Amino acid sequence: MRVLGVDPGLTRCGVGVVEGLPGRPCKLIGYYVVYTDPDDDIALRLLRLDTELAALVAEHKPESVAVERVFSQHNVRTVMGTAQASGVAVLAGARAGLPVQTYTPSEVKAAVTGSGTAGKAQVTSMVTRLLGLDAPPRPADAADALALAICHIWRGGTRARMEAAVLAAKRRARR
Amino acid sequence: MRVLGVDPGLTRCGVGVVEGLPGRPCKLIGYYVVYTDPDDDIALRLLRLDTELAALVAEHKPESVAVERVFSQHNVRTVMGTAQASGVAVLAGARAGLPVQTYTPSEVKAAVTGSGTAGKAQVTSMVTRLLGLDAPPRPADAADALALAICHIWRGGTRARMEAAVLAAKRRARR
Repeated sequence: MRVLGVDPGLTRCGVGVVEGLPGRPCKLIGYYVVYTDPDDDIALRLLRLDTELAALVAEHKPESVAVERVFSQHNVRTVMGTAQASGVAVLAGARAGLPVQTYTPSEVKAAVTGSGTAGKAQVTSMVTRLLGLDAPPRPADAADALALAICHIWRGGTRARMEAAVLAAKRRARR
Repeated sequence: MRVLGVDPGLTRCGVGVVEGLPGRPCKLIGYYVVYTDPDDDIALRLLRLDTELAALVAEHKPESVAVERVFSQHNVRTVMGTAQASGVAVLAGARAGLPVQTYTPSEVKAAVTGSGTAGKAQVTSMVTRLLGLDAPPRPADAADALALAICHIWRGGTRARMEAAVLAAKRRARR
């Protein structure tokens, strides 16, 4: 399963592509940060983000897209731009006909570190280890996007295993 | 000048198309509300909004798009969806190669009622009068979108007249 994770942001948007199967080690395909100029018009910035995300989806052909959910407890000055960027990211996946799943920051942290309150450094360190990288991915936006992709593969896997277990139990019950 | 105004929202997104020239009466071309189902997936909802807005832009061929700016002092539960919808609206204009301008709610209210703190009813009443309609446009989201389009025509006009005055003054100074 190949997943494209997006840590949405207007000035810096992290994108990470990971391949893997539930319960198996994941493989890094690539990571990127899309930058847009804060001095540019909002329309130009969202258009650039849309164009870059569409290009990355076309290049990597992921089977699904995972986007971090935005909360309003963040910095009020920047949260509107982040929310607009997340809308564009979700749309980029949907327009390519892909399933899009959103995860809260604590779901992602819990998936890769075991703790929903882990810090940025811990997330980066676990992403580096889980993907078997020689050096941590930089900047942190890229590491967060990779963590999202890993979270989606593993949680999708958990769900698939649970569904399989439920099916197996039903089959046993029928015998 | 034909302007497509958007009052962004995820559940209800108002769209108003107005034709006019600065300082002249405006003409209603059409108004719409795009609804998306709150029970649907966010990706489906944003995709539907994007598709509908792109279709309205293609149908009406406006020369520019005006979108209401979203602030975080709104209801925290819904503001993230509104911000995502506004990102999609701005992008719809930009992807069609059109200039996109954003206005704050008070700029819009001031443009059509003379007061930046006017209520919804007053805005609807002025939009009805300014467009010479027999009945107020319903729902209020549509009236707000029409107010945005009127605001853009008039403010663009003010700007154009000021620029013309500055140019004329420069020309006089050169003589």
